[in-house]
Formats: sequence, structure tokens, C-alpha cells
Amino acid sequence: MDDLAEANKSNQDTINMGGGSPFPIKASREVYTSLFQELANSRAEIEKLYGQYSAPAGNQETRDKLAGYLRKKFGWNVSSEHVAVTNGNQAALFVLFNMLGGPNESAERNEILFPLIPEYVGYQNLLLPGLKVRAPKPSIQILNDHLFEYRVDFSRIQVTEKTAAVCLSQPSNPAGKIHSETDLKKLDYISNEKGAPLIIDSAYGAPFPNIIFSECPPYWSENTILLLSLSKLGLPGLRSGLIVASPERIAAFSKFSTSLNLAPNSIGAHILTELVSRGAIDHLCSQTICNFYQEKIAFASSKLISSLADTPCRLHHMGGGFFIWLWCEHLPFLGRELYSRLKTKGVVVAPGEEFFLGLEPDWSHGRECIRISCALPDTQLNVGIELIADEIVDAYR
Amino acid sequence: MDDLAEANKSNQDTINMGGGSPFPIKASREVYTSLFQELANSRAEIEKLYGQYSAPAGNQETRDKLAGYLRKKFGWNVSSEHVAVTNGNQAALFVLFNMLGGPNESAERNEILFPLIPEYVGYQNLLLPGLKVRAPKPSIQILNDHLFEYRVDFSRIQVTEKTAAVCLSQPSNPAGKIHSETDLKKLDYISNEKGAPLIIDSAYGAPFPNIIFSECPPYWSENTILLLSLSKLGLPGLRSGLIVASPERIAAFSKFSTSLNLAPNSIGAHILTELVSRGAIDHLCSQTICNFYQEKIAFASSKLISSLADTPCRLHHMGGGFFIWLWCEHLPFLGRELYSRLKTKGVVVAPGEEFFLGLEPDWSHGRECIRISCALPDTQLNVGIELIADEIVDAYR
Repeated sequence: MDDLAEANKSNQDTINMGGGSPFPIKASREVYTSLFQELANSRAEIEKLYGQYSAPAGNQETRDKLAGYLRKKFGWNVSSEHVAVTNGNQAALFVLFNMLGGPNESAERNEILFPLIPEYVGYQNLLLPGLKVRAPKPSIQILNDHLFEYRVDFSRIQVTEKTAAVCLSQPSNPAGKIHSETDLKKLDYISNEKGAPLIIDSAYGAPFPNIIFSECPPYWSENTILLLSLSKLGLPGLRSGLIVASPERIAAFSKFSTSLNLAPNSIGAHILTELVSRGAIDHLCSQTICNFYQEKIAFASSKLISSLADTPCRLHHMGGGFFIWLWCEHLPFLGRELYSRLKTKGVVVAPGEEFFLGLEPDWSHGRECIRISCALPDTQLNVGIELIADEIVDAYR
Repeated sequence: MDDLAEANKSNQDTINMGGGSPFPIKASREVYTSLFQELANSRAEIEKLYGQYSAPAGNQETRDKLAGYLRKKFGWNVSSEHVAVTNGNQAALFVLFNMLGGPNESAERNEILFPLIPEYVGYQNLLLPGLKVRAPKPSIQILNDHLFEYRVDFSRIQVTEKTAAVCLSQPSNPAGKIHSETDLKKLDYISNEKGAPLIIDSAYGAPFPNIIFSECPPYWSENTILLLSLSKLGLPGLRSGLIVASPERIAAFSKFSTSLNLAPNSIGAHILTELVSRGAIDHLCSQTICNFYQEKIAFASSKLISSLADTPCRLHHMGGGFFIWLWCEHLPFLGRELYSRLKTKGVVVAPGEEFFLGLEPDWSHGRECIRISCALPDTQLNVGIELIADEIVDAYR
């Protein structure tokens, strides 16, 4: 979190590959800005949006439209009662974790299970005292000389009566991991057996912004809580998102959220409603946003792979998102030290260690990784990757 | 909270005097809508607002401008380091209460002291387990046959090493109570002595929206945390506000908020910045907003006073805000029953009981009050007050 502030403050010459800010893609900005102009010129509409508290679960039209979109596109059996507007995934997960799990020491369910680490570092700050992290080691599959992939190690996954929720990001932040439908079904099944929901944080995933480099529809069931965000569409300033879940969980979520916030903010939900009801969202995601990041990832990863060919480094298989997750096996020093050296050279990455939420500290892999954002202009991306590769090649010398 | 949802859903014929929604005042809507139009037409500005995460404490320009405004207008010794952007007072108070008091049973400070009840009902839902309410009885001053006023009973106020914060709303929601500067200084002094801040929730107060019916500048000291909101300016849909506090507390607040929300939303802060830097905010508040509500309150209270002349009912002295707080002494049934009877007649008010946060249940006064919102069109306000008066006159017959 502090990195965000630091990166914002850092001097202009620093190449910031550490944060999760989306790139201001020109074609999508044009769409959003013209929607804002339309909105501002529709006096009745804008006055309703700023002048009224939203209903606790958000604007009814947004809930209707999103449910209709999900029914039509994926055949899900959902109504507006399955949808609530949120103030973004981070805020929504704070509510969900603590509503499902406590925050009381004596709560019956007091553990959040993350079935595959590394996982988004922000999750652990959302857990109030009394709520524990369970984050078993994944298995590592070596795909070839340059690529590896984490797999859920089901032999270590234990969902119990203490489990408040099972939670993962899809594609995962930081590694870009895409869980197969089979694995998600399995996780859903064993969660449901113990009365715990499967939370899927789709901040980078389907159905929007859909930064996924293969055919991969979103997973959903009545036991799933799917979180959707507007941030990586390029609208992070609006702090807006949605959740899709069973009507009972939506009702509980809205009640808890209302205590905290009175009402969700309404501008983001309006913009999304327009994108959905005009049928613009799918084209925007697949043609503009996903393509944009896929090209960045393709360029950066192939450059990195060829530069690091003589080192034992491997990249995680890039299933989606806009990060490269780099594993420097047998690195002669810690990942945090690599981060510091790179910072001195003028490039900020995210040290990998913190993403291994609550893991036993004796797993050296956890200190050999860094996360690199590719949401940068080409020239900066090129220079940044070069600096990173040079530093690592040096390190192994 | 549930009332908000219920009132939104209730049928068109119901006169809703129960909620806290501001009235959509025409003159202020014109100002806001034209600011939105300007914003939408300034491509660079709108793209920055929606396209970037705010810094953790909010946009620097907003913080600078607000600090400058407070220095110039009130002579306070504050810089941008004293200001943070929030997602509204409710969300900000959730952070403050739990940051100051720890949600942990074992936290050193585990009590929030509300020096004068009745106090805003939403506060108690913001306290995580382990954090307790202290809400000593106030004294009641009879002003005349029609008016009374609560006073802080300092003999009952005990700030201790367990006190995480002393908190009040000014003017108070629900009663419209204005604490004198002397009382605020006293509360500040005894809080500061024990290392606890004085939190002043100025949602209805100074410097904006400044719905205060007398000359009453806002109180501030380095030990004060002042909360300002855009909601009662007529912008509740934007979920935006500010806090003014010592740089240390602002830093702690921003850190905690960032964990929860990543960043505050940016649209509301922009609109406020424009109002402040164009010098429009003071005129808007004093000439448009305050006058509007003062006329509503004057009309409704004089009608209510004359209709209830033959009953033992008294109104709380109306220092500010847009509520009338009515005390029906020796009412032959509970305030909640009065609420139900009124609802049957087609007018929704807020039953008073819940505003006496955590009070001993044997104080009959706590069950003899209702809160009436006057933020209504004249005809509805007229009919609503008539229905309320008729029902109460009947009750005493």
C-alpha cells in the first residue's frame, strides 16, 4: 500500500513497474469521456446521481442490467437480487471477510483460506483481529526452460467448519494464474460442503475487464461470490465495483455495507450500466483492453526470456492480467534486495515476498520472486525490462 | 439504516420525514450541474479523475485548497498535512473509531464517549466488537412552554485512559443541538488530558453546509478531528467528505483507509475544490442552503408549536440542521408506537429511542421523542406536520 503513495511521489525518471494502476488506454478513455459528457448534459440523470443516496445494494437499474447481461451471456440463473453495487473490490472484500468470519475471536468461523499463493497482498490488511489467514503451499510445475506454473495442491487444502471463506483472484494478482474450471468446481464443492463460499476476485478477469489470454468464461454457482471491478477497465478513480452472489449473501452484504458507508457511490455504477446496456462492454474489453495488455505482456516477456536465457529464472505462465511474475531461482540474495538494487537503478518493482500471505518462512521460493507491471508506455517498458534483466544477469555472475 | 431502504421503497403517497436525505434545492443543483458539465468538457481533468487512483490522503490540490480556505477564513494554523479526503463521514468515522480504539478486546483504549445523547444512530453500527459506547445522560433545560434543550452534564463526563475518542455531532443529529464554544473547549481539554481526541462530526455544520441558525464558527484545535461532508450540500450520491486533524492523525487515518479502500473516490473532492477555489462555497451555504432549511424549520416548528399548545410536548431548541426533535412528555404509549401509528396514517418519522445510544433503559424520556425531517416540499411538509400534530393531540385526549 505504501508503495502506491511512494510511487506517486517518486520522481519522474523512475520507471514505476511496482503498482497496479491501469494504463490510460486512448480508445477506452474516449468511450468513458463521452459517456461523462452525455451524463453531465442530461440534467435529470446527473442530478439524480449526485443528489440522492443510492439504495443500499445500489441503483436498481444497474442491478437489473447486470443480471440481464449475465443471464444472456452465460446462461446464469441470476436476477437483480443476486447483484450489489460496491465501492470497489478491496472495500467489498473487507465487508465480506469480516461479515463471513468474525471479527470476533469467538466467531465460529475465523479463517480465510487462500488456496493458491502467491495471492494479492492487500487481502491480509483487510482481516480484522481474530480472523486468520490459511495459505498452504502450492505445487510448482516446470513447464519448460522459461516458464513455470503454480498448481493448487489439493492434498494441503483443508476446508473445515472454521473456514469463513475460500478466496482467490482469477487471473491471480500477482502471478496471472488461471484456475481451470475443474479446479474451481472442486474448490467450490469442498467449500460448499462445509458451508463456506468460494470468493472469486475478478478484478482483472471475466466478464470485464477480461484481461485473459485464452477462452475462459467466469465461474459462478450459488455458492460463489464473484467480485467485479471498474478499476482495471481504466476507471480506478471512481472506486466502484459489483458483487454477484446468492440473494441471502447479497442482503447480508448490503446490510453490513450500509452500516459502514450508508450507500455506495453512484457514478461508476452509472457508467457501467451505460456500457452494458449499449452492448459496448464486450467489444471494449476484448478488442481494446485485453489486446492492449496482451501485446505489452508478449513484448516484455519475450524480451525478458531471451535476456535471461542463461540464468535459472523462469516466468509464471501468463494467463491474464498485466503483470509478469518472475522467479529467480537460487538468487544469491533476497528478492527484497533485488527490489532495492533495482530501485537504485531507477526501476520500481513489487518484491514478491509479501504476496505469500502468512506462509511458513522457510520456503526459499517465497523470497526469489518479483512482480513486474507491464501497464507502461512502450519506451519505459523496454528500458525497465532491460534494467531488470541486466541487474539479474549480473546477480548470477 | 433499514429505514433508508424502506423509505426508498415506500409508496408515493407516504410522506417520508424519517430519513436524512437533503432536499434537491434548485439553486444549488444549478451550481453543481454546471460544474459537472465543465468537468466533463475538460478532457484532461475528467480523464485524470476517473483514470487514476487518488493519493491515499486524497488529491493534493484539494488538500491545499481546503487548508488555505480554513487558514484564511478562520485563522487556523493548518497546512495540507492537516487535511485528508474521505468517502463521507460515516466511512471516515468507521476508520477513526476503530483506528483509535482498536477492534481488539485487549486494546488499551476501548470506549467511545458520546458526551451528549441523543446522538446519531449510525454511530453504534460503526463500532467493531470490543469497542464500547459510553453515553451518559444529559441534563434537560426547559426553555419555555414550547422549547427545551439538552446540556452536557459535566458531572457525568468521565474521560479516562480507556477513552479512545470523545465524539459529537455539531449541530447534533437528531436534536439540532449547538454546543457552545466554552463547552467544546472544556470537552477538548479533558479529552486531551487523557490523550483522546475530540471528534466533531460537522455533517450539517460549519464551515459547510453550515446549516446553523446563529453565528457559530467551527471549533478546532490540534486535538480536534473535524469531519466535513458533501452530502448535506446536496451531493450525497458522491459519498465524499474531508477530515481536518493533526498531521499524525491524518497519516494514521490515511494508512488505515488505504488498507480498506486503496484510495478515496475523487469526483466529490474535485467538485468541492472548485467551489472553494472559486469562492462560491460560503455564499452557496449561507444564502442558499442555510436559508432554505431555516425557512422550512421556522414554518414547521411554528405550526407544530401552535398545534400542540395544549399538550405537554416541547421541541428541542433548533440550533441547526433540518430536523425537528419533538419530546412528547408523559406520552401514554411508547415513541415507537407513535411511529407505527403515524406510519399507518401515511407519514414516516424516526422513532427517537435508538438515538439514545446505549443508555440505561429506565429513562422514560428516551422513549418519548421522535425526529422529524423538514427537508420536504412545502405541501408535503404542511400535511406531514398536520398529521403528526393530530395524532399526538389525539394521544393525550
